[in-house]
Amino acid sequence: MAWIVQKYGGTSVGSAEKIINVARRIVRTVSKGHSVAVVVSAMGDTTDALTALAKQIMPQPDERELARLLATGEQVSSALLTMALHALGQAAVSFTGAEAGVLTDGVPLNARICDFKADAVRQALEAGKVAVVAGFQGVDRCGEINTLGRGGSDTTAVALAAALGADSCEIYTDVDGIYTIDPRLVPAARKLTAITYDEMLELASLGAKVLHPRAVECGKEHGVVIHVRSSFHDEEGTLVKEDVGLEKGTVINGIACDENQVKFAVLGVPDRPGVAAKIFSAVAQAGINVDLIVQSISRAGENDILFTVAEDDFEKARSVLQPLIEEIGASTLRYQHNVAKISVVGAGMIHHTGVAAGMFQALADAGINIEIISTSEIKISCLIAAEHLQEAAQAIHSYFNLQESCACPQE
Amino acid sequence: MAWIVQKYGGTSVGSAEKIINVARRIVRTVSKGHSVAVVVSAMGDTTDALTALAKQIMPQPDERELARLLATGEQVSSALLTMALHALGQAAVSFTGAEAGVLTDGVPLNARICDFKADAVRQALEAGKVAVVAGFQGVDRCGEINTLGRGGSDTTAVALAAALGADSCEIYTDVDGIYTIDPRLVPAARKLTAITYDEMLELASLGAKVLHPRAVECGKEHGVVIHVRSSFHDEEGTLVKEDVGLEKGTVINGIACDENQVKFAVLGVPDRPGVAAKIFSAVAQAGINVDLIVQSISRAGENDILFTVAEDDFEKARSVLQPLIEEIGASTLRYQHNVAKISVVGAGMIHHTGVAAGMFQALADAGINIEIISTSEIKISCLIAAEHLQEAAQAIHSYFNLQESCACPQE
Repeated sequence: MAWIVQKYGGTSVGSAEKIINVARRIVRTVSKGHSVAVVVSAMGDTTDALTALAKQIMPQPDERELARLLATGEQVSSALLTMALHALGQAAVSFTGAEAGVLTDGVPLNARICDFKADAVRQALEAGKVAVVAGFQGVDRCGEINTLGRGGSDTTAVALAAALGADSCEIYTDVDGIYTIDPRLVPAARKLTAITYDEMLELASLGAKVLHPRAVECGKEHGVVIHVRSSFHDEEGTLVKEDVGLEKGTVINGIACDENQVKFAVLGVPDRPGVAAKIFSAVAQAGINVDLIVQSISRAGENDILFTVAEDDFEKARSVLQPLIEEIGASTLRYQHNVAKISVVGAGMIHHTGVAAGMFQALADAGINIEIISTSEIKISCLIAAEHLQEAAQAIHSYFNLQESCACPQE
Repeated sequence: MAWIVQKYGGTSVGSAEKIINVARRIVRTVSKGHSVAVVVSAMGDTTDALTALAKQIMPQPDERELARLLATGEQVSSALLTMALHALGQAAVSFTGAEAGVLTDGVPLNARICDFKADAVRQALEAGKVAVVAGFQGVDRCGEINTLGRGGSDTTAVALAAALGADSCEIYTDVDGIYTIDPRLVPAARKLTAITYDEMLELASLGAKVLHPRAVECGKEHGVVIHVRSSFHDEEGTLVKEDVGLEKGTVINGIACDENQVKFAVLGVPDRPGVAAKIFSAVAQAGINVDLIVQSISRAGENDILFTVAEDDFEKARSVLQPLIEEIGASTLRYQHNVAKISVVGAGMIHHTGVAAGMFQALADAGINIEIISTSEIKISCLIAAEHLQEAAQAIHSYFNLQESCACPQE
């Protein structure tokens, strides 16, 4: 007699047939006596298709209007899933993000959830209905529709689980759980039974697309255990939680890859205080996330500053940076597409030395050049040419012996 | 410096390119100093596609969920059109039906507008913005999304014009205006410069799909002059208003055709009071609109009752009627597909005799048999075999000389 939040991603609801399958799974859970609230993403590639349509009209559409456009995707899938539940004889009712009580911070396309007033959802559950909530969206205090950014339905689900005090939050997806690395890159990849919030945060923010970083943050903040599992079968997936117990001894838990990067190089930057701040505050003001940053050692009073941004932000970044070159007295702006970031992540790194050295050795053994290096307490990232990504992934996965459940470097 | 409401139908906003063209037209109107509120339909065949998707899941989807599903179509087009206005440098803001203040009566899929609290739209116009309102939808007093039924965006536009006290309400469509008859049937069809509300109501309810009947009713009730015109060029279309002035002398203003009919015949009905009522109340309770009705002269204490329903309602009507036959003591139920209704409409008929005789003569001259006749003050309808529809239309159009601007029978 548990309260369960289930979230189904776009692939799981990509067609009428798949929606009916999802409805069957929900009904199976209800038939065990549980109360189920469902959060649903837009069908298949709806969000991409709507974005493409908007960009046909205007390369940089107004953010308010784009948010309102994109929010329709989840309204469609929530209505259809509710109909599918009715078709199976299950009482159900759909909610937009606004109706479900998702209050957001007013950032149109990348909003954070400030509050989740889940009373209406709770009442539906108490009345024996399945509540089907449109993910990825909320309204701000002025009633304006905001979206939560790519993958934001995960966050809706975890926030709803927290608001309801649910016993469990299941994220159904098209993969079986969290792997040591994307199995499409390295077939020997191993599914983890559990991973800490912090490790998952690093993996998620590094481009492992299974779970949205804010969902992990929200889970961590409210102590919601997140169960990432497949919508195609009933096997257990991976639990994301504070303390992973048995697997605590491992040094590295995963490798994340991100091909979607562009490297910028600002060459000949005068070596005086405030110049780097000027560059990065201009980029930040344009709403662009900068990833890896390195500054070379000063030569003859000049620096080279390198950094990466997501490929999607390339045009915006270039238009912000180009006029800055003259203003700050730098010599040239260069950029390079087709670069990839590969990162190893593990909470165990805090207590183990030699992980960075091992990673560099694995890449060197494979003859792969490292362009940028960046580290945190529990991760190390390297930028390499995108064409070598798979090779690099295999070399590192094998070097750290991640196919075995205790991941230590092979000696 | 007028306040203008413009409504664009699905064909006019069927692609990104067409949406940009619509935006250009709006900007031209604004550049003349006018304030413009726009009502927009869903793109192209979006509503049909969403309905089909719902029916894949469940043949009779829940009406609440279907309304919520369909309402997304206009939310998409209103956001895209607003972006297109921004791309042209025009300040603009989109509204859902709920945000625009459309209060409906709570019938999920066929709601009527109870009230239009257009304050938010008015404020946007006063701030120099174009207000882009999602047509076809509103919310009831509980905040539930309702849709207005097929073609309901016309009604949104006329109701908004009434609420704003707008100077003009322009309905942009893929035809040039209201014609004496569908030009695809009769190439000599003539565009009317004006038509009365009552004539338009007869034409609309007879199947001329240019303007939604409730929009005409709403225009009549609030004295909103409706200008039906093409979104593809700048020529004047047809004004729908109370008094058509110059053209008042015409007897007939239009011919409407409806191929989408099935004829039912209940044969051998006992000639006693209450039998016809029994038949038609059963049909009405099933939500089926009955069109032409005739009852033959009683022979030997028995009548034959003939009537037509829309082809879409055929199965439902048959399942209601079949069990009634025995109950009322009739002998047989027959039906006939492939029948068409042709109607002549004109406010001038009230004061002119001989229109019916002229119509029958035109059909007789063309050798076309009339199966049912029905008349009102301003219209005469005949049911004929569908295969003769075009021939009949040409014969009647030519008999009444409708290609000339003064429509009188050719003597």
